[in-house]
Amino acid sequence: MAHTETKPVFEKLTLIGIGLIGSSLARVARKNNLASHISISSRSESTLVRAEELALGDSYYQDAADAVVDADCVIACVPVGASETIARNIGSSLKSGAIVSDVGSVKRAVIDQMQPHLPTNIHFIPAHPVAGTEKSGPDAGFDSLFENRWCILTPLENTNVDALNKLSTFWQGCGSNMEQMEPDHHDLVLAITSHLPHLIAYNIVGTANDLETVTSSEVLKYSAGGFRDFTRLAASDPTMWRDVCLYNKDALLEMLSRFSEDLSALQRAIRWGKGDQLFDLFTHTRGIRRAIIDAGQEVDAADFGRQNVGQTTEISKDE
Amino acid sequence: MAHTETKPVFEKLTLIGIGLIGSSLARVARKNNLASHISISSRSESTLVRAEELALGDSYYQDAADAVVDADCVIACVPVGASETIARNIGSSLKSGAIVSDVGSVKRAVIDQMQPHLPTNIHFIPAHPVAGTEKSGPDAGFDSLFENRWCILTPLENTNVDALNKLSTFWQGCGSNMEQMEPDHHDLVLAITSHLPHLIAYNIVGTANDLETVTSSEVLKYSAGGFRDFTRLAASDPTMWRDVCLYNKDALLEMLSRFSEDLSALQRAIRWGKGDQLFDLFTHTRGIRRAIIDAGQEVDAADFGRQNVGQTTEISKDE
Repeated sequence: MAHTETKPVFEKLTLIGIGLIGSSLARVARKNNLASHISISSRSESTLVRAEELALGDSYYQDAADAVVDADCVIACVPVGASETIARNIGSSLKSGAIVSDVGSVKRAVIDQMQPHLPTNIHFIPAHPVAGTEKSGPDAGFDSLFENRWCILTPLENTNVDALNKLSTFWQGCGSNMEQMEPDHHDLVLAITSHLPHLIAYNIVGTANDLETVTSSEVLKYSAGGFRDFTRLAASDPTMWRDVCLYNKDALLEMLSRFSEDLSALQRAIRWGKGDQLFDLFTHTRGIRRAIIDAGQEVDAADFGRQNVGQTTEISKDE
Repeated sequence: MAHTETKPVFEKLTLIGIGLIGSSLARVARKNNLASHISISSRSESTLVRAEELALGDSYYQDAADAVVDADCVIACVPVGASETIARNIGSSLKSGAIVSDVGSVKRAVIDQMQPHLPTNIHFIPAHPVAGTEKSGPDAGFDSLFENRWCILTPLENTNVDALNKLSTFWQGCGSNMEQMEPDHHDLVLAITSHLPHLIAYNIVGTANDLETVTSSEVLKYSAGGFRDFTRLAASDPTMWRDVCLYNKDALLEMLSRFSEDLSALQRAIRWGKGDQLFDLFTHTRGIRRAIIDAGQEVDAADFGRQNVGQTTEISKDE
């Protein structure tokens, strides 16, 4: 159920960290009247100043413990490796009954880091909005980032139903579709749909950088042949992705090893000229993009719709 | 020098194959008056009928040998594996002095396939426009496909300069920037900038398809976390990419083996929790996207500019 009432979901919302995700939350919360007061915290003074210049919140603090005072909902919007420090820091300043949540791409490790340091009289509900771009920082956010994207909650045992519903209402107010999962299953699903793709993208861009037979100027010039697609993910925030690798190690190693196995088979098919095997794989994978478009998770335009400005011809309708 | 005269570059242009590339060429040649007459050939009757419905040319033939009669320029726009058959078929029907070219993603194999079957009184100039989308067929083409994209010519020894200039003028009239390369070097450069990325994309989509712990519906739902980016390349034409794998085998195997080596190092860094090593790689790769954008080969917008309709906030300027 979407948030359609005039009453905000929360009296006071605290965002710890005001990068791409935090600043997008601030923008959509303001736009859709999801909180009466938004307090913002960032360890970085320059980031905090910028957040204030952008008028993203109502109050600003370098110390997260100050920002969470009297908050009904606190959302940590930081790389997953910073979760423990934050929980330690805010634990004793939280209002009884407050909801504490996060936006981390890994859930089991966040739970392990935060739960021991949070008091029992608050509602800790881990969350992960599956949305983002390759840009970082408070300027990079925008209020439609979560629109029609999935937000996965991984509630712990005995989570208070009212608190769970309230957090769901908040995210629905941000435009998200809601889903619930076991934390470990979340980490496995995201390993294949998000973590492995990023790792592969970082890797291929690294490989291209290190060639001695092809110059980097050639890589740039002819990147429209396919390579440039990978550079988007490989331009993502290094701290965030380092932490994902460190904190979702087992699932990621499992997916990496399957990927490598499959790649070896492909390599063998190329070496021995197995055209039919290649054709079968290349046909098999074609349908999945259509299914993603039909699921509302991708644009229905050739080349992500990024074709040259001035294009007038319409794209194939019968494909 | 761009084609600015009112006189067409060619009296009669023949396009053999009228898929994404062929039909884009037909459209831009018509729009920019690059040929007085465009003859089109396709082995597939239904494709030929569709090309005529779209009014892409002036005459239509199922037999390429009929289409090339009196042509000043013949461009084969087919998967590279079909090159030999076409050269055999058209060889004896070509006008003396005609230019014969192609658009294949591999150059050495195309030369090996076509040259022996072409008469010596024509000008054979292999070419490769580095442009495309994941769509196929005559409906998928559009007249700005080649705009600001590179077109690589790989002329053979003793290529006639006038013929070379004429073909360059034609491609510049299509909006392309021109470059010349040795065929073998072309195949190496494209192996990293285009062929390996496609192969990796096909592979990861295949891996995701084959999991028993994550359902395909979960892969679709959470694909916005990064996976969907790969599905675009993995939706490309299977025949074209099978042929690229078969006909650029050595360069592709070399790039694959470098990629796998690098991936093993990355895997090891994850297993042993080498955060600094991961951070360094993830930082190192960030700059290349900016360089590609600065080189005019990528859009300067977050997420390929495909963000949800209705977004109003501007993207970070200070990144």
